[in-house]
Amino acid sequence: MDYQAFFKSRLADLKHDGNYRVFIDLQRKRGNFPEAKWTSGASTKDVAIWCSNDYLGMGQHPKVLAALHEAVDRCGAGAGGTRNISGTTHDHVLLEAELADLHGKEAALVFTSGYVSNWAALGTLASQIPDCIVFSDSLNHASMIEGIRHSRAEKVIWKHNDLEDLEAKLRAADPTKPKLIAFESVYSMDGDIAPISQICDLADRFGAMTYLDEVHAVGLYGPRGGGIAEQEGVMDRLTVIEGTLGKAFGVVGGYIAASVELCDFVRSFASGFIFTTALPPAIAAAATASIRHLKESSVERDAHKAIVAKVRRRLDTLGIPHVDNPSHIIPVIVGNPAKCKFLSDTLLEEFGIYIQPINYPTVPKGTERLRITPSPVHTSGDVDRLVCALHSLWSQCQLARQPVAAE
Amino acid sequence: MDYQAFFKSRLADLKHDGNYRVFIDLQRKRGNFPEAKWTSGASTKDVAIWCSNDYLGMGQHPKVLAALHEAVDRCGAGAGGTRNISGTTHDHVLLEAELADLHGKEAALVFTSGYVSNWAALGTLASQIPDCIVFSDSLNHASMIEGIRHSRAEKVIWKHNDLEDLEAKLRAADPTKPKLIAFESVYSMDGDIAPISQICDLADRFGAMTYLDEVHAVGLYGPRGGGIAEQEGVMDRLTVIEGTLGKAFGVVGGYIAASVELCDFVRSFASGFIFTTALPPAIAAAATASIRHLKESSVERDAHKAIVAKVRRRLDTLGIPHVDNPSHIIPVIVGNPAKCKFLSDTLLEEFGIYIQPINYPTVPKGTERLRITPSPVHTSGDVDRLVCALHSLWSQCQLARQPVAAE
Repeated sequence: MDYQAFFKSRLADLKHDGNYRVFIDLQRKRGNFPEAKWTSGASTKDVAIWCSNDYLGMGQHPKVLAALHEAVDRCGAGAGGTRNISGTTHDHVLLEAELADLHGKEAALVFTSGYVSNWAALGTLASQIPDCIVFSDSLNHASMIEGIRHSRAEKVIWKHNDLEDLEAKLRAADPTKPKLIAFESVYSMDGDIAPISQICDLADRFGAMTYLDEVHAVGLYGPRGGGIAEQEGVMDRLTVIEGTLGKAFGVVGGYIAASVELCDFVRSFASGFIFTTALPPAIAAAATASIRHLKESSVERDAHKAIVAKVRRRLDTLGIPHVDNPSHIIPVIVGNPAKCKFLSDTLLEEFGIYIQPINYPTVPKGTERLRITPSPVHTSGDVDRLVCALHSLWSQCQLARQPVAAE
Repeated sequence: MDYQAFFKSRLADLKHDGNYRVFIDLQRKRGNFPEAKWTSGASTKDVAIWCSNDYLGMGQHPKVLAALHEAVDRCGAGAGGTRNISGTTHDHVLLEAELADLHGKEAALVFTSGYVSNWAALGTLASQIPDCIVFSDSLNHASMIEGIRHSRAEKVIWKHNDLEDLEAKLRAADPTKPKLIAFESVYSMDGDIAPISQICDLADRFGAMTYLDEVHAVGLYGPRGGGIAEQEGVMDRLTVIEGTLGKAFGVVGGYIAASVELCDFVRSFASGFIFTTALPPAIAAAATASIRHLKESSVERDAHKAIVAKVRRRLDTLGIPHVDNPSHIIPVIVGNPAKCKFLSDTLLEEFGIYIQPINYPTVPKGTERLRITPSPVHTSGDVDRLVCALHSLWSQCQLARQPVAAE
């Protein structure tokens, strides 16, 4: 077989379908985020980032950077080993205690990424608990899908956020078998939010464990940044809360928070946890500083809500359609990969505004979109420039607008 | 089902079998590695680490730490998104160019860890290439096994480092089907080295791709730290070279180096690459500094070889048995998990020497071991203390010694 020809042909297909991804080479400017330097070939240009998951700008917060610098000076760069073989540092221990406290759980376990935490924790629970059936929301993240798939446990997919469908499927399952309901709080591409409490009711009725992915919510919702479950006062009802250190907390890494025994079980049996080098201690220290700050400060969360509302209002005024949802994510559906890429390219090149086109497989074909994520570090001027650019492009491309209500 | 009772019972089984892992809480001292502070309950103690995979002490190298600090000051902490959605920074671009150059390949692709690079790259290649058969060395790392398993491709396991067995199995396979031979250069737990060149001969004869994991070799072998394949002058014969930034390079992360098309293919189709937050730019910058330094400097590699030879010689003088191998890894087989843990605990508590017991599932039952990894930052005094402690424990525990040759 001509392997190179095979790779080329598959890549050509992607390009033909408009689904080939071009990565944008950026340098964020510490202290000036969302500003960044974009490098393209030999030229560079200043751009404003409008699609980052560093939702609160904590990636440049002085406390976070001070903790990172301090820990590098104290311990050096890498952990030097797996958690079991010289890679557990005091910074990891403190981080896990901080996370357990954040979610009101007995324990927490840190992974190298949110992806790995979902893949390893779901994969381990579903494969190790004999005859476990996993009830998975149809829009769960790739990392959850891959973890469940890896477990080879029986999987039942229920309609996205549909309690009736979940109930019917739980009822249809063998009542003697162990069950795990896996879902997210904020769904990242549509920004809608799960009915957590009612899902927990069903879990209680049918004897199921619950596994809630809060990666797009931790730091952002709840009085201490514990996520949607904290905001709704239901953290104690969930068996596992999974989160990330790489979005609102501004660093990198993932985790689960749960009972001592569940965390110890995953710690002891998850290949993706055991056989991998631990996060650098300085990353753990920076994450801890970020979590601690957001436990005590609501300034960032309040400013975040305010700017999200402002951007929505401005888009409404111009009739630029966006998905209505109760979260901080503003999806502007374009519905065509080539058009979506054209809009993104033009925003970048002509307006210095960076919003990555979101195409298949991240979203279903036909729902290609610009996903706008305002942050408290975006200024009024940034918002003006964004809205004017979209207004101009919507006219230039003769894109549909929605009726504008009188203000 | 009582889930908590299930977890407790499985954990009790691990404890009963002596396979329950207790993590040691350490703080490395930057500039004084291998020295570290061990925290146990309320007390702390200074210890020397003898089991780190920071093989050369690059985790505390001034150039690496300076690059890390500089990039944090320049860009902040996290990348803020996946590689596709605002997470590709100029530091990632430079790192991938550095890695491609290190291995003499057209391109490289960075992952969040070595584990993820194996899992995602092997999983993607084996699942996406129709009818691919994977020929996997029987002692391949867990991350390779899980990646191959995840792909659901046909897998043929060949006897560890056994060319005859590999040849027989290649010959028995359908000659029209695509093939991928997956193996490591230095096997981490026994320290033996694969016959890379002869495996490439077989690959050529049977039309197979080759995938070589060099995580325990990059930075350490070859004139520029390109690994065993560089040392043997065969880098160009391998389809994929996989490596880590978390061992000899002293930071964290993993990568593959290969043709432009292969890297682009994995970039475009690997779930574990696409759907995860990029490494922090400062981590990429620190890794680049480490790789560049070790490309130009052989001081660390020479000192490493010298101290490994010295420790072996001293152990030989005392008749303390260790596995003979051509690498830098010194396994002292104990063969019993409880005894192995007792030795490790006593070394830590009484001698201030930290060598983690390596038990099942990292190594097969009955081959439990102390795995000693000398580094250029260990002093003569450190070696004296290690050897005296082992000598004393060998007598105290009446462990078998091997005949001592006259010097």
